[in-house]
Amino acid sequence: MLQHRPLRLIPSLSHSFTYSAASELSASVRRRSSRAYSIHANASVGTGIQNIDPSKLSITNTTTPKQLLPPEELIFGRNFTDHMLSLEWTASQGWLPARITPYQNLSLDPATCVFHYAFECFEGMKAYKDKQGNVRLFRPEMNMARLNKSSARIALPTFDGAAMTELIGKFVKLDERFIPEARGYSLYLRPTMIGTQRTLGVGPPASALLYVIASPVGPYYPTGFKAVSLEATDYAVRAWPGGVGDKKLGANYAPCIVPQMQAASRGFHQNLWLFGEEEYVTEVGTMNLFAAIKNKETGQSELLTAPLDGTILEGVTRDSILGLARERLEPQGWKVSERRFTMKELADAADEGRMMEVFGAGTAAVVSPVRKISWKSRLVECGLADHAEAGPIAQQMKDWIEGIQYGDEDGHPWSYKVV
Amino acid sequence: MLQHRPLRLIPSLSHSFTYSAASELSASVRRRSSRAYSIHANASVGTGIQNIDPSKLSITNTTTPKQLLPPEELIFGRNFTDHMLSLEWTASQGWLPARITPYQNLSLDPATCVFHYAFECFEGMKAYKDKQGNVRLFRPEMNMARLNKSSARIALPTFDGAAMTELIGKFVKLDERFIPEARGYSLYLRPTMIGTQRTLGVGPPASALLYVIASPVGPYYPTGFKAVSLEATDYAVRAWPGGVGDKKLGANYAPCIVPQMQAASRGFHQNLWLFGEEEYVTEVGTMNLFAAIKNKETGQSELLTAPLDGTILEGVTRDSILGLARERLEPQGWKVSERRFTMKELADAADEGRMMEVFGAGTAAVVSPVRKISWKSRLVECGLADHAEAGPIAQQMKDWIEGIQYGDEDGHPWSYKVV
Repeated sequence: MLQHRPLRLIPSLSHSFTYSAASELSASVRRRSSRAYSIHANASVGTGIQNIDPSKLSITNTTTPKQLLPPEELIFGRNFTDHMLSLEWTASQGWLPARITPYQNLSLDPATCVFHYAFECFEGMKAYKDKQGNVRLFRPEMNMARLNKSSARIALPTFDGAAMTELIGKFVKLDERFIPEARGYSLYLRPTMIGTQRTLGVGPPASALLYVIASPVGPYYPTGFKAVSLEATDYAVRAWPGGVGDKKLGANYAPCIVPQMQAASRGFHQNLWLFGEEEYVTEVGTMNLFAAIKNKETGQSELLTAPLDGTILEGVTRDSILGLARERLEPQGWKVSERRFTMKELADAADEGRMMEVFGAGTAAVVSPVRKISWKSRLVECGLADHAEAGPIAQQMKDWIEGIQYGDEDGHPWSYKVV
Repeated sequence: MLQHRPLRLIPSLSHSFTYSAASELSASVRRRSSRAYSIHANASVGTGIQNIDPSKLSITNTTTPKQLLPPEELIFGRNFTDHMLSLEWTASQGWLPARITPYQNLSLDPATCVFHYAFECFEGMKAYKDKQGNVRLFRPEMNMARLNKSSARIALPTFDGAAMTELIGKFVKLDERFIPEARGYSLYLRPTMIGTQRTLGVGPPASALLYVIASPVGPYYPTGFKAVSLEATDYAVRAWPGGVGDKKLGANYAPCIVPQMQAASRGFHQNLWLFGEEEYVTEVGTMNLFAAIKNKETGQSELLTAPLDGTILEGVTRDSILGLARERLEPQGWKVSERRFTMKELADAADEGRMMEVFGAGTAAVVSPVRKISWKSRLVECGLADHAEAGPIAQQMKDWIEGIQYGDEDGHPWSYKVV
């Protein structure tokens, strides 16, 4: 199953091309090559180097298996399983054989490019245990496709998503004792790719590491939904046209913390990112956002979310909600819209009695109902009764999606049974 | 010299505040705290925890000193000195005592936040040897101030810049044998701060590492200037108002590589970042940009650079050129302007015989002359005669600044003599 296909989405560019540019950071490289500005395109990338080959996986079992934590003590992303999956890549060799090893530290030179230029991207996905004890993933091909788009955007290598999914399955099976049996529990998986080249020169990394770690997690809402409140942010901007806000890059996260802390300091759980003078509603914290309103002109029930215009993270849960809404809500008379909408449009819907509900969408909670949004010194109420913690659409979506994730809808194409 | 002052630019926010937000990434934290949304502001940060104290520095000398490379073999950012300087920070204790140790790998858990959310920022600065053998830094307070602004923007800790400069001086003195004596050579210093908290939860890191590594570098242009050609980029956008383009974050670099590679694939050394429908000229690659033109209305010689509007990196070389131009060019009749200018304005100047010269400005080259810019299927010539590799202003600025850096202008306030 050794594969020989192009590894990179930009096959006409090669790692061996001359960095003779006037970067402050490529001074001496330039010094060595400033007389030859030629571009050695197609020199080696894309021909004859290895893609991921799952048959070459090696496994080193831990000799010190961890004790399982009581489920109620699980903290998101804090505790990890016994092992990790890792694959090294070099520009000259492609993907080296995958290894499952005991969970262990990475030892990296302090000049490694991941520490300086944010050559890093990741995915969030989960493994579930169904009633029969099978291990299931949810739409893993979506995560692999997105990781490839993220990595290509920052000049990291791409890979065969199906082969990687196969490897993730083997890893999860090895550590499946960490997946609690109960509904609501799962194993959060974090595929991560980092540039590992040891140089301060700014250029495409000639080596990278793709690794997967796994953290057992409990239900997002152990006692049922809990609606959140948001603060609309207009002084800071998460993403912009021509930027990278649609990719799952580390670069999109660190700059969001201070606005999040500022919202929290005023008592809001998350901030809501607006964009432009029009104050388009884009995303909430680290989730996509949906709103259900009655259309102003037609009175039709409309499920709204921002379109994938390059500033919106292409959420797997977002896509799943849209798919289910088109399949199961449209026949009930709903309109499902991927379109731009403004904060004023939401406020008007609230003022005019047309607001039904608002919720975030992401891997951890599936959906996260919103009670109110602070905007321009007012609070926009999002349609929840005082005693309610979720609207009917949020509840329905959570039930549908979890039903598929935990294998209740047997044979659903979104559920990937690990064999 | 133990100091007790606020460490963080956002002293009203604490690392201990409750992360109950609906982030997909804070699921279980939320689970544990979703009933208490209170913010524990001012709990510990800013009171009674340590700032950097240079008197507590410990030094462990290497037992395997490296051989010096022949100067002509130096490659930027590839080879490092014998030692490194590092300081750990924790939210509860502040800055722990600084250590100089042998240069060594960092050992980090694969869940460390720097690998996932780009909690990283850095500086570029240089140490020079003057004719008397003294070691000199160039405006180090500018780098320390900028690093503090960068770190605060991504919820990393701030620090006493003067204390850090003192420590950097001790580090550089210890490894001063790596600074070649000859003019044009220097020791590139890379102060770097990374978040080191071991969690996938998205929040302010409760621990960080500030380290400095040093790479001996040769002259940018060993045989004199070499003018570069640029490609104006309009399909990708480096920075945005309300974004973080004015901070020296890792997050600003990885997304710039593919546009740089695409410019290179068409034979250009760097890309020039335009902004907006107006096509404002912002920065070139990893440098600031200056243009010298004859003003269209007055005929006056004008030195132009983009203003610090939040999208422009606040370059130390940029600031130095502006300062010298105001001090030494304005008396000669020049106008010095920090203002927005468009690509069309440059093209018009070229077409109308008013183009004098264009150059990039950064730490490595001081200035980097530009011969031509590709823009909308045309080439804008930037005023250089065919045989010339630099215009007179670029040459003058390089001479003035290097004169200060290497201590020729003794007592100049921009040169910091390490004692």
